Amino acid sequence: MRNVSIIGIGQTQVGELWEMSLRDLGAQAVRAAMRDAHIENADALYIGNMLSGEAAGQAHLGPLMAEAVGLRGVEAVKVEAACGSAAYALRLAYLAVAGGMHDTVIVLGVEKMTDRAPGRVTNGLVTAADGETEAAQGLSFVSINALLMQRYLHEFGWAHRDFAQFAVNAHLNAAGNPHAMFHNLITPADFDKAKMVASPINLLDSSPMADGAAAVIITADPIAKEFAERPVRIKASTSATDSIALADRRDLLTLDAARKSALKAYDIAGLKPADIDLFELHDAFTIMSALSLEAAGFAERGQGVRLALNDDIGIEGRLPISTMGGLKGRGHPVGATGLYQVVEAAQQLRGQAGRNQLQNARIAMAQNIGGSGATVTTHILEAWR
Amino acid sequence: MRNVSIIGIGQTQVGELWEMSLRDLGAQAVRAAMRDAHIENADALYIGNMLSGEAAGQAHLGPLMAEAVGLRGVEAVKVEAACGSAAYALRLAYLAVAGGMHDTVIVLGVEKMTDRAPGRVTNGLVTAADGETEAAQGLSFVSINALLMQRYLHEFGWAHRDFAQFAVNAHLNAAGNPHAMFHNLITPADFDKAKMVASPINLLDSSPMADGAAAVIITADPIAKEFAERPVRIKASTSATDSIALADRRDLLTLDAARKSALKAYDIAGLKPADIDLFELHDAFTIMSALSLEAAGFAERGQGVRLALNDDIGIEGRLPISTMGGLKGRGHPVGATGLYQVVEAAQQLRGQAGRNQLQNARIAMAQNIGGSGATVTTHILEAWR
Repeated sequence: MRNVSIIGIGQTQVGELWEMSLRDLGAQAVRAAMRDAHIENADALYIGNMLSGEAAGQAHLGPLMAEAVGLRGVEAVKVEAACGSAAYALRLAYLAVAGGMHDTVIVLGVEKMTDRAPGRVTNGLVTAADGETEAAQGLSFVSINALLMQRYLHEFGWAHRDFAQFAVNAHLNAAGNPHAMFHNLITPADFDKAKMVASPINLLDSSPMADGAAAVIITADPIAKEFAERPVRIKASTSATDSIALADRRDLLTLDAARKSALKAYDIAGLKPADIDLFELHDAFTIMSALSLEAAGFAERGQGVRLALNDDIGIEGRLPISTMGGLKGRGHPVGATGLYQVVEAAQQLRGQAGRNQLQNARIAMAQNIGGSGATVTTHILEAWR
Repeated sequence: MRNVSIIGIGQTQVGELWEMSLRDLGAQAVRAAMRDAHIENADALYIGNMLSGEAAGQAHLGPLMAEAVGLRGVEAVKVEAACGSAAYALRLAYLAVAGGMHDTVIVLGVEKMTDRAPGRVTNGLVTAADGETEAAQGLSFVSINALLMQRYLHEFGWAHRDFAQFAVNAHLNAAGNPHAMFHNLITPADFDKAKMVASPINLLDSSPMADGAAAVIITADPIAKEFAERPVRIKASTSATDSIALADRRDLLTLDAARKSALKAYDIAGLKPADIDLFELHDAFTIMSALSLEAAGFAERGQGVRLALNDDIGIEGRLPISTMGGLKGRGHPVGATGLYQVVEAAQQLRGQAGRNQLQNARIAMAQNIGGSGATVTTHILEAWR
């Protein structure tokens, strides 16, 4: 098994980008990554995307994007795992390179969510849940997360306002990220009085629908030395599933797939939670931040929210999360999000995080979640010395 | 690089299966393959599917199917390359096993097309084409193929009726396949007078929309010996792309991706076209059969239809194709088709093709096409001795 490193990263602005098509977005991110890696070719192109059929009237992104980035003919395919699509595309690329079947693979996450009516996109998003037992009962994707948050508040005795710092931190960090969708700061008071979406989840608990694309290029380590000034090694890549429907879970408030995926990643990397210098977690909703922190071993069950209350999660904190704004502040183009997380972790490890740069960050973890926790893919990254 | 073999195959009936859900279909095929392989677990589950979001209101098939087959927790993901989805899922599994990253992977192709209004499915199918330059101009997927066929007739001087034997052969072979959608025989006269769909393509040029699922289980050869009585080795697995839009092709009547993928497969396997004992090709429309035969080196440009006229393509012919009915006769559940081809090729190589059994078939090729030739994946299979 070969060591694998990231040798190029690229990303577009995140936001309501009505002047750019899905194709434009993907091409811009990939070309940026190719320039960064100083490469002009690759063995394959893997694309994470969730909603292109529903929200952009376009399937079959493999050949579409291969041609758009100037690589007509190269093998290319789309991978879908709801909001966890992009990290899974990276995992498939990792497997091919680590096993010696490909040398260099470009991985793209791309999503165009804002061109069609929001209702249509809302209907698209709930296809991440169980169509027969959840969507058919009228649940939306927000209301599924609202059930989780309501149960969390009930079972552990927290108040909704205890989650404020997750959103405040995300907006603070997004303000320092030029690619982020939001650059406005918010206060705990803003969080308290934000419009209700699906009780107890309000607008500031929720990440925004957005357009965007992010790309990474990976290769085997001996080759990486030739191309990249600052390669970032993939120390571990893991994925696991849980039941797609909440009602079938072993425990509603434990993300079993996140736990399994994180534990396996620690094991492969020979690391423990205390070794992680930053954690790009899947903060689609504030409740997901708390549950992710618990599943990855940074807090006991029901205590994840305490890290926010103590501000352990800020840039200067014990465990910085969402360091470039996270899904909440940078924006959440669903099928692209998992690669934004990896690109941002790489920016930190390469010392290119600008105003948000962490001091001495050496090990980063990125965890991308599909659905309400049904697909979870974890990557641990390490700066080359 | 390890040798990889198929140790289990499974398939459902193909047809309008209104009493079965997407989940039911997938589970039935996977369980059949697991029984055939005598295994109860696997490292991963890869799923080929095109239209579940559009036609079944369900994305995120990885965890859905993992749980449905009794493997909750196992890593699982959906792969999409339009009608070429299932063979690409097999290719990704092959890469992981050949490279030593996984030992055993279950691959499923599943599609549910007949529950929603046909118009909705027609709209879904055209997302395989270029949304901006083809679908937006009002082209359907049939009319895109009609453009190809019209040009073929014009350029090479064939008559529409010269394609009849592709359809006649498919129905004849389907009649001997208990899983096939159609069991009625047709004549060249039936073909001539069939209802027009999009001139010159008529109903009997066209494969039918269908529900169905097919599964294979692959592992590395040393392990294969423990499980399967008759493993089938994957001698080559290749994939290539071409421009998604017809207008951007180098030559409208050469399937460049099919050619590239086939040539690379021959090279890897150390074989030539004359070594292939049967060819499961992608006969979504009769024109695709002719173009596929040409691209894979069995006929010169413009001469593929001659193999049908000479009846070289029958069970007793020089190059049997669509031996269990093909997309036309067995039915074309789009995202599952690529694995039906592989399952049927394996049936032939294992001597389990019943009434349609070829004598002394040792090498099979299966080629799965996405869109009008934009993604093409080729597998060459060999019977173990």
